[in-house]
Amino acid sequence: MRITIIGSGNVATHVSAAFKNAGHRIAQVYSRDMQNAALLAYHVGAEAVNDLKNITADTDIFIIAVKDDAIAEIIPQLSRFKKLIAHTSGAVDMQVIQNFTEQAGVFYPLQTFSKTKELNFREVPLCIEGATEDVTKELEGLARSISNNVYRVSSAQRKILHLAAVFACNFTNHLYTLSQQLLEQNNMSFDTLRPLIIETADKIKEHSPADVQTGPAVRNDEQTIQKHLQMLNNNPKLREIYTLLSQDIIKNYNTGNGDK
Amino acid sequence: MRITIIGSGNVATHVSAAFKNAGHRIAQVYSRDMQNAALLAYHVGAEAVNDLKNITADTDIFIIAVKDDAIAEIIPQLSRFKKLIAHTSGAVDMQVIQNFTEQAGVFYPLQTFSKTKELNFREVPLCIEGATEDVTKELEGLARSISNNVYRVSSAQRKILHLAAVFACNFTNHLYTLSQQLLEQNNMSFDTLRPLIIETADKIKEHSPADVQTGPAVRNDEQTIQKHLQMLNNNPKLREIYTLLSQDIIKNYNTGNGDK
Repeated sequence: MRITIIGSGNVATHVSAAFKNAGHRIAQVYSRDMQNAALLAYHVGAEAVNDLKNITADTDIFIIAVKDDAIAEIIPQLSRFKKLIAHTSGAVDMQVIQNFTEQAGVFYPLQTFSKTKELNFREVPLCIEGATEDVTKELEGLARSISNNVYRVSSAQRKILHLAAVFACNFTNHLYTLSQQLLEQNNMSFDTLRPLIIETADKIKEHSPADVQTGPAVRNDEQTIQKHLQMLNNNPKLREIYTLLSQDIIKNYNTGNGDK
Repeated sequence: MRITIIGSGNVATHVSAAFKNAGHRIAQVYSRDMQNAALLAYHVGAEAVNDLKNITADTDIFIIAVKDDAIAEIIPQLSRFKKLIAHTSGAVDMQVIQNFTEQAGVFYPLQTFSKTKELNFREVPLCIEGATEDVTKELEGLARSISNNVYRVSSAQRKILHLAAVFACNFTNHLYTLSQQLLEQNNMSFDTLRPLIIETADKIKEHSPADVQTGPAVRNDEQTIQKHLQMLNNNPKLREIYTLLSQDIIKNYNTGNGDK
Protein backbone atom coordinates (compact mmCIF):
# COMPACT_ATOMS: atom_id res chain seq x y z
CA MET A 1 0.00 0.00 0.00
CA ARG A 2 0.92 3.66 -0.36
CA ILE A 3 0.90 5.18 3.10
CA THR A 4 1.09 8.80 4.27
CA ILE A 5 2.28 9.35 7.82
CA ILE A 6 0.98 12.38 9.73
CA GLY A 7 3.41 12.95 12.61
CA SER A 8 7.08 12.25 13.26
CA GLY A 9 7.17 11.18 16.92
CA ASN A 10 7.78 7.79 18.52
CA VAL A 11 4.65 6.09 17.16
CA ALA A 12 5.07 7.57 13.67
CA THR A 13 8.72 6.48 13.61
CA HIS A 14 8.14 2.86 14.62
CA VAL A 15 4.95 2.32 12.62
CA SER A 16 6.38 3.77 9.41
CA ALA A 17 9.57 1.71 9.76
CA ALA A 18 7.44 -1.43 10.21
CA PHE A 19 5.39 -0.55 7.10
CA LYS A 20 8.51 0.03 5.04
CA ASN A 21 10.09 -3.22 6.24
CA ALA A 22 6.91 -5.06 5.19
CA GLY A 23 7.24 -3.71 1.65
CA HIS A 24 4.74 -0.86 1.77
CA ARG A 25 5.63 2.51 0.30
CA ILE A 26 5.65 5.55 2.57
CA ALA A 27 4.54 8.39 0.27
CA GLN A 28 4.89 11.44 2.54
CA VAL A 29 5.73 12.25 6.15
CA TYR A 30 4.12 15.35 7.62
CA SER A 31 5.27 17.23 10.70
CA ARG A 32 4.84 20.90 11.67
CA ASP A 33 8.58 20.78 12.29
CA MET A 34 10.36 20.37 8.93
CA GLN A 35 13.50 18.95 10.54
CA ASN A 36 11.52 16.18 12.24
CA ALA A 37 9.59 15.46 9.05
CA ALA A 38 12.80 15.34 7.01
CA LEU A 39 14.59 13.01 9.43
CA LEU A 40 11.84 10.39 9.45
CA ALA A 41 11.13 10.82 5.71
CA TYR A 42 14.79 10.17 5.00
CA HIS A 43 14.74 6.93 6.99
CA VAL A 44 11.67 5.54 5.23
CA GLY A 45 12.36 6.91 1.73
CA ALA A 46 9.44 9.35 1.73
CA GLU A 47 8.87 13.00 0.93
CA ALA A 48 8.87 15.38 3.90
CA VAL A 49 6.22 18.10 4.22
CA ASN A 50 5.53 20.62 6.99
CA ASP A 51 2.37 22.15 5.54
CA LEU A 52 -0.83 20.12 5.21
CA LYS A 53 -1.50 21.98 1.93
CA ASN A 54 1.42 20.10 0.38
CA ILE A 55 -0.07 16.68 1.10
CA THR A 56 -0.84 14.89 -2.16
CA ALA A 57 -3.51 12.37 -3.22
CA ASP A 58 -0.83 9.84 -4.22
CA THR A 59 -1.60 7.51 -1.29
CA ASP A 60 -4.02 4.81 -0.11
CA ILE A 61 -4.21 5.63 3.58
CA PHE A 62 -3.41 8.42 5.99
CA ILE A 63 -2.04 7.21 9.33
CA ILE A 64 -2.32 9.96 11.95
CA ALA A 65 0.20 9.70 14.79
CA VAL A 66 0.18 13.10 16.49
CA LYS A 67 -0.68 14.21 20.03
CA ASP A 68 -4.33 13.40 20.80
CA ASP A 69 -5.32 17.05 21.14
CA ALA A 70 -4.10 17.75 17.57
CA ILE A 71 -5.97 14.95 15.75
CA ALA A 72 -9.38 16.60 15.28
CA GLU A 73 -8.10 19.71 13.51
CA ILE A 74 -6.14 17.65 10.97
CA ILE A 75 -9.01 15.44 9.72
CA PRO A 76 -10.91 18.06 7.63
CA GLN A 77 -7.69 18.85 5.77
CA LEU A 78 -7.26 15.19 4.78
CA SER A 79 -10.85 14.10 4.10
CA ARG A 80 -10.94 15.99 0.77
CA PHE A 81 -8.72 13.23 -0.72
CA LYS A 82 -11.45 10.58 -0.21
CA LYS A 83 -8.88 8.09 1.07
CA LEU A 84 -8.86 5.92 4.17
CA ILE A 85 -7.94 7.83 7.35
CA ALA A 86 -6.91 6.09 10.58
CA HIS A 87 -5.53 7.49 13.80
CA THR A 88 -3.21 5.63 16.18
CA SER A 89 -4.54 6.91 19.50
CA GLY A 90 -5.75 4.80 22.38
CA ALA A 91 -7.97 7.50 23.80
CA VAL A 92 -9.62 9.26 20.83
CA ASP A 93 -13.01 8.17 19.42
CA MET A 94 -13.13 6.91 15.85
CA GLN A 95 -16.06 9.32 15.56
CA VAL A 96 -13.71 12.31 15.17
CA ILE A 97 -12.80 10.89 11.76
CA GLN A 98 -16.27 9.51 10.96
CA ASN A 99 -17.65 13.04 11.31
CA PHE A 100 -15.97 13.74 7.96
CA THR A 101 -15.82 10.39 6.17
CA GLU A 102 -16.93 6.75 6.40
CA GLN A 103 -13.43 5.83 5.25
CA ALA A 104 -12.53 6.03 8.95
CA GLY A 105 -10.63 3.72 11.24
CA VAL A 106 -8.28 3.24 14.15
CA PHE A 107 -4.86 1.59 14.07
CA TYR A 108 -3.74 1.58 17.72
CA PRO A 109 -0.45 -0.09 18.65
CA LEU A 110 -0.64 -1.09 22.32
CA GLN A 111 3.04 -0.61 22.98
CA THR A 112 5.48 1.95 24.35
CA PHE A 113 7.84 3.32 21.73
CA SER A 114 11.03 5.32 22.04
CA LYS A 115 12.95 6.48 19.00
CA THR A 116 16.24 5.12 20.28
CA LYS A 117 14.95 1.65 21.26
CA GLU A 118 14.31 -0.94 18.57
CA LEU A 119 11.76 -3.65 19.12
CA ASN A 120 10.21 -6.59 17.28
CA PHE A 121 7.11 -5.03 15.73
CA ARG A 122 5.63 -8.46 14.91
CA GLU A 123 4.91 -8.85 18.66
CA VAL A 124 3.21 -5.47 19.06
CA PRO A 125 -0.55 -5.84 19.73
CA LEU A 126 -2.45 -3.81 17.10
CA CYS A 127 -6.01 -2.79 17.99
CA ILE A 128 -8.11 -2.23 14.87
CA GLU A 129 -11.47 -0.54 14.41
CA GLY A 130 -13.22 0.47 11.19
CA ALA A 131 -16.33 2.54 10.42
CA THR A 132 -17.43 -0.17 7.97
CA GLU A 133 -16.64 -3.87 7.61
CA ASP A 134 -14.67 -3.09 4.42
CA VAL A 135 -12.53 -0.56 6.24
CA THR A 136 -12.00 -2.93 9.17
CA LYS A 137 -10.86 -5.68 6.83
CA GLU A 138 -8.50 -3.38 4.96
CA LEU A 139 -6.95 -2.18 8.24
CA GLU A 140 -6.70 -5.76 9.52
CA GLY A 141 -4.83 -6.76 6.38
CA LEU A 142 -2.44 -3.86 6.77
CA ALA A 143 -1.99 -4.67 10.47
CA ARG A 144 -1.29 -8.36 9.79
CA SER A 145 1.40 -7.38 7.30
CA ILE A 146 3.44 -5.97 10.20
CA SER A 147 2.24 -7.79 13.38
CA ASN A 148 1.16 -11.25 14.56
CA ASN A 149 -1.09 -9.77 17.30
CA VAL A 150 -4.05 -8.08 15.62
CA TYR A 151 -7.25 -7.50 17.60
CA ARG A 152 -10.63 -6.04 16.66
CA VAL A 153 -11.37 -3.57 19.44
CA SER A 154 -14.26 -1.11 19.79
CA SER A 155 -13.65 2.53 20.73
CA ALA A 156 -15.02 1.83 24.21
CA GLN A 157 -12.75 -1.19 24.70
CA ARG A 158 -9.76 0.65 23.32
CA LYS A 159 -10.19 3.42 25.87
CA ILE A 160 -10.12 0.87 28.70
CA LEU A 161 -7.02 -0.78 27.22
CA HIS A 162 -5.34 2.60 26.94
CA LEU A 163 -6.21 3.49 30.53
CA ALA A 164 -4.92 0.11 31.75
CA ALA A 165 -1.74 0.70 29.75
CA VAL A 166 -1.20 4.02 31.52
CA PHE A 167 -1.14 2.13 34.84
CA ALA A 168 0.91 -0.82 33.61
CA CYS A 169 3.43 1.11 31.52
CA ASN A 170 3.53 4.88 32.01
CA PHE A 171 3.09 4.86 35.78
CA THR A 172 5.37 1.85 36.11
CA ASN A 173 8.14 3.61 34.20
CA HIS A 174 7.69 6.64 36.43
CA LEU A 175 8.18 4.42 39.49
CA TYR A 176 11.46 3.27 37.91
CA THR A 177 12.43 6.94 37.62
CA LEU A 178 11.53 7.66 41.24
CA SER A 179 13.62 4.70 42.42
CA GLN A 180 16.55 5.88 40.30
CA GLN A 181 16.30 9.39 41.78
CA LEU A 182 16.24 7.93 45.27
CA LEU A 183 19.39 5.90 44.62
CA GLU A 184 21.26 8.75 42.93
CA GLN A 185 20.40 11.18 45.74
CA ASN A 186 22.21 8.67 47.96
CA ASN A 187 25.17 8.14 45.59
CA MET A 188 24.14 4.65 44.53
CA SER A 189 23.84 3.24 41.05
CA PHE A 190 20.54 2.33 39.40
CA ASP A 191 22.34 -0.68 37.88
CA THR A 192 21.90 -2.59 41.15
CA LEU A 193 18.12 -2.39 40.69
CA ARG A 194 17.94 -3.34 37.01
CA PRO A 195 17.83 -7.16 37.51
CA LEU A 196 14.94 -6.71 39.96
CA ILE A 197 12.96 -4.61 37.47
CA ILE A 198 13.47 -7.14 34.68
CA GLU A 199 12.45 -10.05 36.93
CA THR A 200 9.35 -8.20 38.18
CA ALA A 201 8.10 -7.92 34.59
CA ASP A 202 9.32 -11.38 33.61
CA LYS A 203 7.24 -12.95 36.38
CA ILE A 204 3.95 -11.87 34.84
CA LYS A 205 4.71 -13.64 31.55
CA GLU A 206 3.40 -16.79 33.21
CA HIS A 207 1.73 -15.57 36.40
CA SER A 208 -1.09 -13.32 37.42
CA PRO A 209 0.52 -10.29 39.11
CA ALA A 210 -1.69 -10.66 42.19
CA ASP A 211 -0.22 -14.16 42.71
CA VAL A 212 3.37 -12.89 42.80
CA GLN A 213 3.03 -9.66 44.81
CA THR A 214 5.91 -9.28 47.28
CA GLY A 215 7.15 -6.59 49.67
CA PRO A 216 6.33 -5.11 53.08
CA ALA A 217 2.76 -4.06 52.24
CA VAL A 218 1.52 -7.48 51.07
CA ARG A 219 3.06 -8.96 54.26
CA ASN A 220 1.47 -6.09 56.23
CA ASP A 221 4.92 -5.57 57.75
CA GLU A 222 4.10 -2.43 59.72
CA GLN A 223 7.56 -1.90 61.23
CA THR A 224 9.19 -1.76 57.80
CA ILE A 225 6.46 0.46 56.36
CA GLN A 226 6.89 2.90 59.26
CA LYS A 227 10.68 2.92 58.80
CA HIS A 228 10.27 3.63 55.09
CA LEU A 229 7.88 6.49 55.79
CA GLN A 230 10.40 7.96 58.25
CA MET A 231 13.12 7.78 55.58
CA LEU A 232 10.83 9.77 53.29
CA ASN A 233 10.07 12.49 55.84
CA ASN A 234 11.96 15.06 53.77
CA ASN A 235 10.32 13.94 50.52
CA PRO A 236 6.58 14.55 50.87
CA LYS A 237 5.92 13.60 47.22
CA LEU A 238 7.44 10.11 47.53
CA ARG A 239 5.88 9.76 50.98
CA GLU A 240 2.41 10.35 49.56
CA ILE A 241 2.92 7.85 46.72
CA TYR A 242 4.36 5.29 49.15
CA THR A 243 1.41 5.68 51.53
CA LEU A 244 -1.28 5.50 48.88
CA LEU A 245 0.10 2.43 47.09
CA SER A 246 0.95 0.59 50.32
CA GLN A 247 -2.53 1.16 51.74
CA ASP A 248 -4.02 -0.11 48.51
CA ILE A 249 -1.87 -3.26 48.56
CA ILE A 250 -2.74 -3.94 52.23
CA LYS A 251 -6.44 -3.59 51.40
CA ASN A 252 -6.11 -5.97 48.43
CA TYR A 253 -4.48 -8.89 50.22
CA ASN A 254 -4.78 -11.02 53.28
CA THR A 255 -1.50 -11.30 55.15
CA GLY A 256 0.63 -14.41 55.26
CA ASN A 257 1.97 -16.68 57.99
CA GLY A 258 5.07 -14.75 59.05
CA ASP A 259 7.51 -16.20 56.53
CA LYS A 260 8.54 -13.86 53.80
CA MET B 1 29.64 -24.84 54.07
CA ARG B 2 27.03 -26.25 56.42
CA ILE B 3 24.06 -23.87 56.37
CA THR B 4 20.97 -23.68 58.59
CA ILE B 5 17.98 -21.90 57.08
CA ILE B 6 15.57 -20.08 59.41
CA GLY B 7 12.34 -19.59 57.47
CA SER B 8 10.56 -21.37 54.65
CA GLY B 9 9.11 -18.57 52.52
CA ASN B 10 10.09 -17.25 49.10
CA VAL B 11 13.55 -15.99 50.07
CA ALA B 12 14.37 -19.09 52.15
CA THR B 13 13.27 -21.33 49.28
CA HIS B 14 15.33 -19.66 46.55
CA VAL B 15 18.43 -19.00 48.65
CA SER B 16 18.61 -22.53 50.03
CA ALA B 17 18.13 -24.04 46.56
CA ALA B 18 20.98 -21.85 45.28
CA PHE B 19 23.22 -22.97 48.17
CA LYS B 20 22.42 -26.60 47.55
CA ASN B 21 23.07 -26.25 43.80
CA ALA B 22 26.46 -24.69 44.58
CA GLY B 23 27.45 -27.75 46.64
CA HIS B 24 26.79 -26.48 50.15
CA ARG B 25 24.98 -28.66 52.66
CA ILE B 26 21.73 -27.44 54.15
CA ALA B 27 21.74 -28.84 57.69
CA GLN B 28 18.30 -27.85 58.99
CA VAL B 29 15.30 -25.82 57.87
CA TYR B 30 13.25 -24.14 60.59
CA SER B 31 9.69 -22.86 60.28
CA ARG B 32 6.99 -22.40 62.92
CA ASP B 33 4.82 -24.35 60.51
CA MET B 34 6.10 -27.95 60.33
CA GLN B 35 4.51 -28.57 56.93
CA ASN B 36 6.35 -25.61 55.41
CA ALA B 37 9.60 -26.62 57.06
CA ALA B 38 9.21 -30.21 55.86
CA LEU B 39 8.45 -29.23 52.26
CA LEU B 40 11.52 -27.03 51.86
CA ALA B 41 13.73 -29.42 53.88
CA TYR B 42 12.70 -32.25 51.55
CA HIS B 43 13.70 -30.24 48.47
CA VAL B 44 17.15 -29.34 49.80
CA GLY B 45 17.91 -32.59 51.63
CA ALA B 46 17.80 -31.07 55.12
CA GLU B 47 16.18 -31.86 58.45
CA ALA B 48 12.95 -29.99 59.19
CA VAL B 49 12.34 -28.43 62.62
CA ASN B 50 9.50 -26.30 63.93
CA ASP B 51 10.93 -25.55 67.38
CA LEU B 52 14.05 -23.41 67.81
CA LYS B 53 15.05 -25.71 70.70
CA ASN B 54 15.67 -28.48 68.14
CA ILE B 55 18.23 -26.46 66.21
CA THR B 56 21.66 -28.13 66.43
CA ALA B 57 25.23 -26.80 66.44
CA ASP B 58 26.09 -28.92 63.36
CA THR B 59 26.32 -25.89 61.06
CA ASP B 60 28.63 -23.02 60.01
CA ILE B 61 26.08 -20.29 59.48
CA PHE B 62 22.49 -19.42 60.25
CA ILE B 63 20.68 -17.64 57.42
CA ILE B 64 17.55 -15.93 58.73
CA ALA B 65 14.82 -15.40 56.13
CA VAL B 66 11.67 -14.62 58.08
CA LYS B 67 9.35 -11.62 58.18
CA ASP B 68 11.30 -8.53 59.37
CA ASP B 69 9.23 -8.19 62.55
CA ALA B 70 10.21 -11.73 63.61
CA ILE B 71 14.00 -11.47 63.22
CA ALA B 72 14.92 -9.84 66.56
CA GLU B 73 13.26 -12.45 68.75
CA ILE B 74 15.06 -15.31 66.98
CA ILE B 75 18.66 -14.05 67.40
CA PRO B 76 19.11 -14.77 71.16
CA GLN B 77 18.04 -18.37 70.55
CA LEU B 78 20.76 -18.83 67.91
CA SER B 79 23.66 -16.85 69.38
CA ARG B 80 24.39 -19.55 71.97
CA PHE B 81 25.89 -21.69 69.18
CA LYS B 82 28.69 -19.13 68.57
CA LYS B 83 28.28 -19.48 64.81
CA LEU B 84 27.92 -16.86 62.11
CA ILE B 85 24.39 -15.39 61.92
CA ALA B 86 23.15 -13.38 58.92
CA HIS B 87 19.72 -12.09 58.07
CA THR B 88 18.39 -11.53 54.54
CA SER B 89 16.35 -8.41 55.13
CA GLY B 90 16.65 -5.15 53.21
CA ALA B 91 15.24 -3.05 56.02
CA VAL B 92 16.62 -4.46 59.30
CA ASP B 93 19.85 -3.14 60.88
CA MET B 94 22.77 -5.54 61.27
CA GLN B 95 22.87 -4.20 64.84
CA VAL B 96 19.95 -6.47 65.87
CA ILE B 97 22.36 -9.40 65.44
CA GLN B 98 25.45 -7.54 66.67
CA ASN B 99 23.67 -6.89 69.98
CA PHE B 100 24.26 -10.59 70.69
CA THR B 101 27.40 -11.53 68.72
CA GLU B 102 30.17 -10.08 66.56
CA GLN B 103 29.65 -13.09 64.27
CA ALA B 104 26.97 -10.94 62.64
CA GLY B 105 26.19 -10.12 59.03
CA VAL B 106 23.65 -9.41 56.34
CA PHE B 107 23.04 -11.43 53.19
CA TYR B 108 20.41 -9.46 51.31
CA PRO B 109 19.29 -10.67 47.87
CA LEU B 110 17.93 -7.65 45.97
CA GLN B 111 15.39 -9.61 43.98
CA THR B 112 11.71 -10.56 44.02
CA PHE B 113 11.12 -14.24 44.63
CA SER B 114 8.04 -16.38 44.20
CA LYS B 115 8.05 -20.05 45.01
CA THR B 116 6.53 -21.02 41.68
CA LYS B 117 8.88 -18.94 39.50
CA GLU B 118 12.41 -20.15 38.86
CA LEU B 119 15.17 -17.67 38.10
CA ASN B 120 18.89 -17.60 37.42
CA PHE B 121 20.33 -16.99 40.87
CA ARG B 122 23.78 -16.13 39.44
CA GLU B 123 22.25 -12.81 38.26
CA VAL B 124 20.70 -11.91 41.62
CA PRO B 125 22.46 -8.93 43.25
CA LEU B 126 23.59 -9.95 46.76
CA CYS B 127 24.22 -7.12 49.23
CA ILE B 128 26.70 -8.16 51.90
CA GLU B 129 27.57 -6.57 55.25
CA GLY B 130 29.65 -7.98 58.11
CA ALA B 131 30.31 -6.86 61.68
CA THR B 132 34.02 -7.55 61.15
CA GLU B 133 36.22 -7.76 58.05
CA ASP B 134 36.54 -11.52 58.61
CA VAL B 135 32.78 -11.97 58.65
CA THR B 136 32.38 -9.75 55.57
CA LYS B 137 34.93 -11.84 53.66
CA GLU B 138 33.30 -15.10 54.70
CA LEU B 139 29.88 -13.86 53.59
CA GLU B 140 31.33 -12.53 50.33
CA GLY B 141 32.83 -15.93 49.60
CA LEU B 142 29.52 -17.63 50.27
CA ALA B 143 27.72 -15.04 48.12
CA ARG B 144 30.12 -15.44 45.21
CA SER B 145 29.56 -19.19 45.27
CA ILE B 146 25.95 -18.58 44.17
CA SER B 147 25.92 -15.17 42.39
CA ASN B 148 28.03 -13.06 40.03
CA ASN B 149 26.65 -9.79 41.45
CA VAL B 150 28.00 -9.38 44.97
CA TYR B 151 28.12 -5.91 46.56
CA ARG B 152 29.42 -4.62 49.89
CA VAL B 153 26.60 -2.44 51.19
CA SER B 154 26.28 -0.67 54.56
CA SER B 155 23.07 -0.90 56.61
CA ALA B 156 22.23 2.70 55.67
CA GLN B 157 22.75 2.05 51.94
CA ARG B 158 20.85 -1.21 52.10
CA LYS B 159 17.81 0.54 53.53
CA ILE B 160 17.83 2.99 50.61
CA LEU B 161 18.16 0.10 48.14
CA HIS B 162 15.27 -1.69 49.79
CA LEU B 163 13.08 1.40 49.71
CA ALA B 164 13.94 1.99 46.04
CA ALA B 165 13.08 -1.66 45.36
CA VAL B 166 9.64 -1.20 46.91
CA PHE B 167 8.95 1.51 44.33
CA ALA B 168 10.53 -0.28 41.37
CA CYS B 169 9.21 -3.77 42.10
CA ASN B 170 6.43 -4.04 44.69
CA PHE B 171 4.51 -0.94 43.62
CA THR B 172 5.12 -1.72 39.96
CA ASN B 173 3.67 -5.20 40.36
CA HIS B 174 0.66 -3.71 42.09
CA LEU B 175 0.12 -1.40 39.10
CA TYR B 176 0.10 -4.53 36.94
CA THR B 177 -2.60 -5.95 39.22
CA LEU B 178 -4.68 -2.77 39.01
CA SER B 179 -4.47 -2.81 35.21
CA GLN B 180 -5.51 -6.46 35.15
CA GLN B 181 -8.49 -5.73 37.39
CA LEU B 182 -9.52 -2.84 35.14
CA LEU B 183 -9.41 -5.07 32.05
CA GLU B 184 -11.24 -7.97 33.68
CA GLN B 185 -13.98 -5.70 35.01
CA ASN B 186 -14.52 -4.83 31.34
CA ASN B 187 -14.32 -8.42 30.08
CA MET B 188 -10.95 -8.03 28.43
CA SER B 189 -7.89 -10.23 28.75
CA PHE B 190 -4.71 -9.18 30.53
CA ASP B 191 -2.79 -11.02 27.77
CA THR B 192 -3.18 -8.01 25.48
CA LEU B 193 -1.14 -5.93 27.95
CA ARG B 194 1.65 -8.42 28.61
CA PRO B 195 3.90 -7.39 25.66
CA LEU B 196 3.67 -3.77 26.80
CA ILE B 197 4.72 -4.65 30.35
CA ILE B 198 7.70 -6.69 29.13
CA GLU B 199 8.83 -3.91 26.77
CA THR B 200 8.47 -1.25 29.48
CA ALA B 201 10.96 -3.15 31.64
CA ASP B 202 13.15 -4.15 28.69
CA LYS B 203 13.64 -0.50 27.77
CA ILE B 204 15.47 0.33 30.97
CA LYS B 205 18.11 -2.35 30.36
CA GLU B 206 19.88 0.21 28.19
CA HIS B 207 18.10 3.48 28.95
CA SER B 208 17.48 5.74 31.88
CA PRO B 209 13.74 5.50 32.64
CA ALA B 210 13.34 9.28 32.57
CA ASP B 211 14.57 9.25 28.94
CA VAL B 212 11.89 6.80 27.80
CA GLN B 213 8.84 8.03 29.72
CA THR B 214 5.73 7.94 27.50
CA GLY B 215 1.99 8.52 27.97
CA PRO B 216 -0.50 11.36 28.38
CA ALA B 217 1.10 12.89 31.49
CA VAL B 218 4.60 13.36 30.04
CA ARG B 219 2.96 14.97 26.96
CA ASN B 220 0.79 17.03 29.33
CA ASP B 221 -2.14 15.83 27.23
CA GLU B 222 -4.89 17.37 29.36
CA GLN B 223 -7.84 16.17 27.25
CA THR B 224 -6.80 12.52 27.61
CA ILE B 225 -6.05 12.88 31.32
CA GLN B 226 -9.50 14.39 31.90
CA LYS B 227 -11.16 11.60 29.90
CA HIS B 228 -9.31 8.98 31.95
CA LEU B 229 -10.36 10.62 35.21
CA GLN B 230 -13.99 10.60 34.01
CA MET B 231 -13.71 6.88 33.24
CA LEU B 232 -12.54 6.36 36.83
CA ASN B 233 -15.39 8.34 38.42
CA ASN B 234 -16.82 5.17 39.95
CA ASN B 235 -13.43 3.98 41.17
CA PRO B 236 -12.14 6.58 43.67
CA LYS B 237 -9.12 4.44 44.58
CA LEU B 238 -7.79 4.20 41.01
CA ARG B 239 -8.73 7.84 40.43
CA GLU B 240 -6.56 8.94 43.34
CA ILE B 241 -3.58 6.87 42.19
CA TYR B 242 -4.02 8.14 38.60
CA THR B 243 -4.16 11.77 39.76
CA LEU B 244 -1.17 11.56 42.08
CA LEU B 245 1.15 9.80 39.63
CA SER B 246 0.08 11.94 36.65
CA GLN B 247 0.65 15.16 38.56
CA ASP B 248 4.06 13.92 39.59
CA ILE B 249 5.00 13.03 35.99
CA ILE B 250 3.79 16.43 34.71
CA LYS B 251 5.89 18.16 37.37
CA ASN B 252 8.96 16.10 36.44
CA TYR B 253 9.02 16.80 32.69
CA ASN B 254 8.81 19.63 30.23
CA THR B 255 6.25 18.92 27.53
CA GLY B 256 7.15 18.07 23.92
CA ASN B 257 6.42 19.61 20.57
CA GLY B 258 3.00 18.10 19.82
CA ASP B 259 4.19 14.88 18.23
CA LYS B 260 3.71 11.80 20.33
